[in-house]
Amino acid sequence: MGHLPTSPTLIMSRFWSPVVHNLTPYVPGEQPKLTNLIKLNTNENPYGPSPKVQAAMQAEIADTLRLYPDPNADKLKAAIATYHGVSPAEVFVGNGSDEVLAHAFQALLKHDAPLLFPDITYSFYPVYCGLYGIDYRTVALSDTLEISTDDYRQDCGAIIFPNPNAPTGRLLARDAIETLLNEHPNQVVVVDEAYIDFGGDSAIPLVSRYPNLLVVQTLSKSRSLAGLRVGFAIGHPALIEALERVKNSFNSYPLDRLAIAGAAASFEDEAYFRQTCQAVINSRETLVGELTHLGFEVLPSAANFVFARHPLRDAATLAAALRERAIIVRHFRQPRIEQFLRISIGTDAECGALVKALEELLSA
Amino acid sequence: MGHLPTSPTLIMSRFWSPVVHNLTPYVPGEQPKLTNLIKLNTNENPYGPSPKVQAAMQAEIADTLRLYPDPNADKLKAAIATYHGVSPAEVFVGNGSDEVLAHAFQALLKHDAPLLFPDITYSFYPVYCGLYGIDYRTVALSDTLEISTDDYRQDCGAIIFPNPNAPTGRLLARDAIETLLNEHPNQVVVVDEAYIDFGGDSAIPLVSRYPNLLVVQTLSKSRSLAGLRVGFAIGHPALIEALERVKNSFNSYPLDRLAIAGAAASFEDEAYFRQTCQAVINSRETLVGELTHLGFEVLPSAANFVFARHPLRDAATLAAALRERAIIVRHFRQPRIEQFLRISIGTDAECGALVKALEELLSA
Repeated sequence: MGHLPTSPTLIMSRFWSPVVHNLTPYVPGEQPKLTNLIKLNTNENPYGPSPKVQAAMQAEIADTLRLYPDPNADKLKAAIATYHGVSPAEVFVGNGSDEVLAHAFQALLKHDAPLLFPDITYSFYPVYCGLYGIDYRTVALSDTLEISTDDYRQDCGAIIFPNPNAPTGRLLARDAIETLLNEHPNQVVVVDEAYIDFGGDSAIPLVSRYPNLLVVQTLSKSRSLAGLRVGFAIGHPALIEALERVKNSFNSYPLDRLAIAGAAASFEDEAYFRQTCQAVINSRETLVGELTHLGFEVLPSAANFVFARHPLRDAATLAAALRERAIIVRHFRQPRIEQFLRISIGTDAECGALVKALEELLSA
Repeated sequence: MGHLPTSPTLIMSRFWSPVVHNLTPYVPGEQPKLTNLIKLNTNENPYGPSPKVQAAMQAEIADTLRLYPDPNADKLKAAIATYHGVSPAEVFVGNGSDEVLAHAFQALLKHDAPLLFPDITYSFYPVYCGLYGIDYRTVALSDTLEISTDDYRQDCGAIIFPNPNAPTGRLLARDAIETLLNEHPNQVVVVDEAYIDFGGDSAIPLVSRYPNLLVVQTLSKSRSLAGLRVGFAIGHPALIEALERVKNSFNSYPLDRLAIAGAAASFEDEAYFRQTCQAVINSRETLVGELTHLGFEVLPSAANFVFARHPLRDAATLAAALRERAIIVRHFRQPRIEQFLRISIGTDAECGALVKALEELLSA
């Protein structure tokens, strides 16, 4: 017979590797199983993926599912390389940009000197640091919640930030990124461009000149494929090699056959991509106008969400009241931003329903 | 301008986290892009997945791909729990059993005392140890290439082995596993059952009595879904909690919408599962007879492959000659097994073509 543990605390600790005890896992935005919700909480695209993507996936549903996928996903790397004007050796792909980021933290961001990232940013970054034992130091955003590259002039092992930043939506200009790269020739700089297609200039064109630059993107937002889990990184082949080494020491086949086919097809339907991105941008501009009209302060957004606060209303209370009306937005209980709501851009109808609900709440 | 590195060696090292330098990544079996090959090298199932699996996946190709999948894959966990008679809290799921194993190594197998595993086994195990800095010690298989649990009576932090073992195909009886569990009440024992459905008794029924047992399985072999990337683990909720903590510190959504739907459907088509497993077993028994007739020594196999050597022919030479005839089998350049070939069970037609080719090679 096995020896049954005598207390929950004991069983929690007895068999675990030491690192597990101190992990504070990431908590993703809620994925409610209810239907008829207006879901503006996890920055998904209101439009589905291209019909050509869906057709490419259909073609993979066959007896060939019995066979392993290409462990190198060469077809997808080629599609990304062609689209972005780089070589396949400069492309890494993974199971969502979260997996790509995880490998980047382990492969490129663990050094003696601390990793730097903004105090207000994607909350997965400190979680990765906990998982891999990476020393980090946060750098405060400015009073306008912007990244100031001047503040990164300090001893560090590497730097990472999203651009546009999340959850603020604020964009850092490519010139400023280039300055940062020049000021840190011996440190890797990871630019996490999950939202770049909604209004910013990608740093990818800088990759050919800066061997210390890694740009990470995802197909979950602008390419409407959150449900398929594909992300990628572009950088100097030496940086990609580090990621490949870690990936091939972790899981040989992170992308399944449908993910490779669907993702590759996405890069071949530029018209659909541009059309849906533009629709989201248009809806965002309309929503920004309406929120402003309701008295909200809305940060300038280059993303598919807006970050807004109302000077007279508590954000957590507003979020809860919206939820009662079947509208979910994201609220972060975190210093400096606890009075903000992060609102994903939905269809015009969804944004309209949100505005109507807020009007009612604010007039109550 | 960035500072271009002056030598490849320099660029390889400058930006990498220290761990990357010493990694020796796993090398999966070749996934050739040629068609018309008889591919008996990576233990794939010769039969495609159930039509019900394919239908369930079809239903997921829709605009809903814009939405994230359920990060907890509750539907799949429920299907696995029901099938195996455990609770969902005893089930962990991941992107192929390789990802499940990776998380298990990090979450449960890193201790002060070394991890034990067989000297001849799945060659990914030492790679995971390299990635996570886990001290390990190998335990020699017996002269008959079997696991002897007696040899594991030594100081250790944890134990892992495949059952049936790979690449030998040899099965360890469930009684022996229970003895091992009783002898190591303070160590986690991971039983990696990738091939169990082809002729062995799973250790899953022991989970309720042994809080130190974690059983890992995959849908890549017996469920014909190598191309979909789904694996799972069953164990005490405290072990599952450790895996969840690591998973949620790595990637919130490792399984895409199609993987969750297809994998769940697989557990609901028992007739197809049993029929295809039996067909593989029947083909294996036929192949074993034919190889024996050709003079091969074939180890008893409980898997969907056989491990065989010919007393008069060099294995590497045979493998190369088969390859020239468009038949791929796996050969490992490793002490003790360098004269063996690992041959996946194909259709009867594929096995027949292999036997015919070997007949010709042996009579030449």
